[in-house]
Amino acid sequence: MSIKIAVAQLELSTSAPAENVRKMNDAIVEAANKGAQLIVLPELANSGYAFKDLAEARRNAIHINGPEIAHWVELAREHDVVIVTGVALVEGQALRNSSIIIDGSGVLGKYDKAHLWNNEPDYFIAGDASPVVVDTALGKIGTMVCYDVEFPEWVRIAKLQGAQILALPTNWPDTGLPRNPTPMEVVRVQAAASQNKMVIAACDRTGDENGVTWVSSSVIVDENGLIQTLASSATQQILYAELDLPTDNSISPRNDVLKDRRTDLYSGLN
Amino acid sequence: MSIKIAVAQLELSTSAPAENVRKMNDAIVEAANKGAQLIVLPELANSGYAFKDLAEARRNAIHINGPEIAHWVELAREHDVVIVTGVALVEGQALRNSSIIIDGSGVLGKYDKAHLWNNEPDYFIAGDASPVVVDTALGKIGTMVCYDVEFPEWVRIAKLQGAQILALPTNWPDTGLPRNPTPMEVVRVQAAASQNKMVIAACDRTGDENGVTWVSSSVIVDENGLIQTLASSATQQILYAELDLPTDNSISPRNDVLKDRRTDLYSGLN
Repeated sequence: MSIKIAVAQLELSTSAPAENVRKMNDAIVEAANKGAQLIVLPELANSGYAFKDLAEARRNAIHINGPEIAHWVELAREHDVVIVTGVALVEGQALRNSSIIIDGSGVLGKYDKAHLWNNEPDYFIAGDASPVVVDTALGKIGTMVCYDVEFPEWVRIAKLQGAQILALPTNWPDTGLPRNPTPMEVVRVQAAASQNKMVIAACDRTGDENGVTWVSSSVIVDENGLIQTLASSATQQILYAELDLPTDNSISPRNDVLKDRRTDLYSGLN
Repeated sequence: MSIKIAVAQLELSTSAPAENVRKMNDAIVEAANKGAQLIVLPELANSGYAFKDLAEARRNAIHINGPEIAHWVELAREHDVVIVTGVALVEGQALRNSSIIIDGSGVLGKYDKAHLWNNEPDYFIAGDASPVVVDTALGKIGTMVCYDVEFPEWVRIAKLQGAQILALPTNWPDTGLPRNPTPMEVVRVQAAASQNKMVIAACDRTGDENGVTWVSSSVIVDENGLIQTLASSATQQILYAELDLPTDNSISPRNDVLKDRRTDLYSGLN
């Protein structure tokens, strides 16, 4: 089934959480009006990323039952879209770097980032559960967050759980590696898609934040890992691609990305 | 430690196995004379790939104790190099699609391809053991063959066994996917290197063979996945790169590609 996917590369800031949420709302409406059926937003879209301190992170985090998410559910219902976004969530004393999958019926799934990057453990408690994969009107959508995707084990588990598409909120900090011909963050997404015969929609962010800049390389790749659209500049923009979700795992007359796995030989991974 | 690596992209043929071996010998000598310390050759370099029938495959296969391998050991001793090559081996009634690691002291390791591509099961028995990683004067060298590298589980196991560099004999059949900006075969190698902080030297082949053509994209990537050299044409050529082997697994002040693995959550992989 062909679906139209949008990734909304937004300029976010830890010092303006209300403005971040307004940008998210606007992006959802704009993408839906352009016919997008699945809309993916960046990691920690509501809060920004490069916090000054824990108090700021806590101040910016929202509640799973709060008004922001209720409004996104409303927007999803009104426009008949599925939304996947990164969010800083507060859960009791804990903060989570989460991704939520939303449709008009509510929050279909919530995933807590399991592999934390650099200073994130100063703010967030790592998740202890698998990537989330949910059945939607568009197909089976899986999600994880940013650094998670660098663990091929994790992408494979999403695939084994049936994900046809992986919606990946990210904040890819610019580490100064050469970007040509393709940023390594995008290369890893391409490989993950191709090795799992899975569409991947990765939504990065943009904008300087407390001295951190971003690769700003939001990308949608097809089930062969081929780039369908890729942000070419560090600016706020919504990118679109319309493509089929995979319905089988075959990659040659006699090969299948899952059946060919030699699980009898993989015990060393644990 | 910085080492000079060569990948010898050869034009091979199932109908001329003696000529294949001559080309291998010549490539080893040429690369050694240009200062290469590690020389990687293609998959099934002695036999060719697209066999007419099992009899041809059997006819072309060599013995682990045969004169061809003895000669490569001699060359390795004479030139003080390490050689990794794909070979069709005959073992009793079985044929194996193998990779061998050779230095002047003999065959240091033999690996049998565990993930077979398309019609290969008509000729070869799949291996039942892990990727081989051996300690050499140059560092810890791991090997696997072609389609094996599409299984991130397999590359990870080589890394967990200590490989600093993966020497990958391949025959990448051209499946018609777009090659720009980078062939997907190379993208997967880049991602594997970057996710494992491991150098990878992949040696492809070239030349039409019974209607099969090849991506002809031999490549050497560094521990960040960055391309150091990449064959730009479907011609016979030897490519070189001199680079450091990784000595740790760190990728940020607080991140490590192995320590960050959530092995507590990976049981679904088996």
